[in-house]
Amino acid sequence: MMALPEENAGEAAPDAMAAAEEETVAAVESVAEETSGKTGGDRPISTILIVIAMQTEALPLVAKFGLAEDADGSVFPKGVPWVRYHGTYKGLHIDLVWPGKDIILGVDSVGTVSSALLTFASIQALKPDLIINAGTAGGFKAKGACIRDVYLPSHVAFHDRRIPIPVFDLYGIGSRQTFSTPNLLKEVNLKVGRLSTGNSLDMSPQDEASILANDATVKDMEGAAVAYVADLLSVPAIFVKAVTDIVDGDKPTAEEFMQNLIAVTAALDHAVTEVVDFINGKSLYDL
Amino acid sequence: MMALPEENAGEAAPDAMAAAEEETVAAVESVAEETSGKTGGDRPISTILIVIAMQTEALPLVAKFGLAEDADGSVFPKGVPWVRYHGTYKGLHIDLVWPGKDIILGVDSVGTVSSALLTFASIQALKPDLIINAGTAGGFKAKGACIRDVYLPSHVAFHDRRIPIPVFDLYGIGSRQTFSTPNLLKEVNLKVGRLSTGNSLDMSPQDEASILANDATVKDMEGAAVAYVADLLSVPAIFVKAVTDIVDGDKPTAEEFMQNLIAVTAALDHAVTEVVDFINGKSLYDL
Repeated sequence: MMALPEENAGEAAPDAMAAAEEETVAAVESVAEETSGKTGGDRPISTILIVIAMQTEALPLVAKFGLAEDADGSVFPKGVPWVRYHGTYKGLHIDLVWPGKDIILGVDSVGTVSSALLTFASIQALKPDLIINAGTAGGFKAKGACIRDVYLPSHVAFHDRRIPIPVFDLYGIGSRQTFSTPNLLKEVNLKVGRLSTGNSLDMSPQDEASILANDATVKDMEGAAVAYVADLLSVPAIFVKAVTDIVDGDKPTAEEFMQNLIAVTAALDHAVTEVVDFINGKSLYDL
Repeated sequence: MMALPEENAGEAAPDAMAAAEEETVAAVESVAEETSGKTGGDRPISTILIVIAMQTEALPLVAKFGLAEDADGSVFPKGVPWVRYHGTYKGLHIDLVWPGKDIILGVDSVGTVSSALLTFASIQALKPDLIINAGTAGGFKAKGACIRDVYLPSHVAFHDRRIPIPVFDLYGIGSRQTFSTPNLLKEVNLKVGRLSTGNSLDMSPQDEASILANDATVKDMEGAAVAYVADLLSVPAIFVKAVTDIVDGDKPTAEEFMQNLIAVTAALDHAVTEVVDFINGKSLYDL
């Protein structure tokens, strides 16, 4: 696709479009709330799916929850590098998936396409009650983020899908509310903010403008794609993102990451465990 | 993911990395050639999957090939807006899929995430021998593209996945050779060039630099994602992209598109039909 569709060739007046966009955003948020009930909001959560982009982020949690790797016969199609760990932790069934190493290049299969595919295939195969997308993120000090902070984002959106045509622009941004967990937030010490997702590790001026428009405090490479798929298949999803580097700071991202990796992985590990402990035995409505 | 993995923290010398990158690219291209044989390269192609991003691009081909929409019981999961048309055209089974209208916003579900998911689910459900990703694209006059030209790209890559870490950078670019069709190119009058894919309709300076580095003649919003999934599941894929607008020209993209839509859709329709007619009755090796 590389052009204007006939029916959206910008005939509506700007004011009418703005009003329509506001209504549409409200509708998206309202639907997000409603669909979460479809999976059976009043019965105890019995199985959760943890989606993680990188092996270094995944392995501490695999150990923590005592999960085992799929030994024989993966639930995934032949040829994909995706890895599933699973097990029962305090009576709760946990599937933890990561997209694995690229078959040719050997690096973690990061970004929106891999995480969307993995989330789709995992929902189809594993039918989770709830998805947790956990990982590291960049944080904006202008919005209050500090290294080691762990966020439970209230909203996710994309910052690298610019389609400057009315309504297509909203589709590209793909802003959606995450599953609302007021009781979890009271119990567990996590910060609230908005998450913005893009496929680049760096940040171009256009990315920065979009991240500002998304009112984001943290920036990752997968969240909004996981949220899109979860919404498509009506599975509630929450996001746990630990800050490894300050995007609007003085230090180069890579250097700052290396300095903070150990402490931040431990913080992420701790936060996800607290979230899972809180979820255990509760229904979706209780979160 | 928002950080350097420990094992890739840039300790290799730049020269060594460059050499390794060249080898890796060669390996990727060689594997792309090999996997195409796995689906049974010497028997006649019996079923093809045409992946199209927009309804306006899809419907003329649905009519041309006399396809019918899935009436009862889609092959796709409940809730997704994806649409499948299917039928037999001159003895060849054709499935044509497009990702449908966004459920809330009502616009075509364009871009890499939707097209990757749709391609994945379609391969799983329909087991095609060959994928054709067809659609409109922007062209670069500096590389010889003109309005109405139809390209059969030799390579695809991404231009909006910048990950400036050795090897991760190559993963982000995701360059791969398309399925080689020397006989098709001799028979059918299509231009050859490279395709670059990104999620934005516009082009930032960073996108432009990456497109230049990808040596691309045409730019779309889906191709490299379709290629990624096709490679992952070892299905050969080719790309047919018709130029609706000149990216490095004077006219605004939207205006140029509206002027050229009818002629370009007809050119795309004609080219895809010629490609399908050529494919019909041949094996993958004969293409």
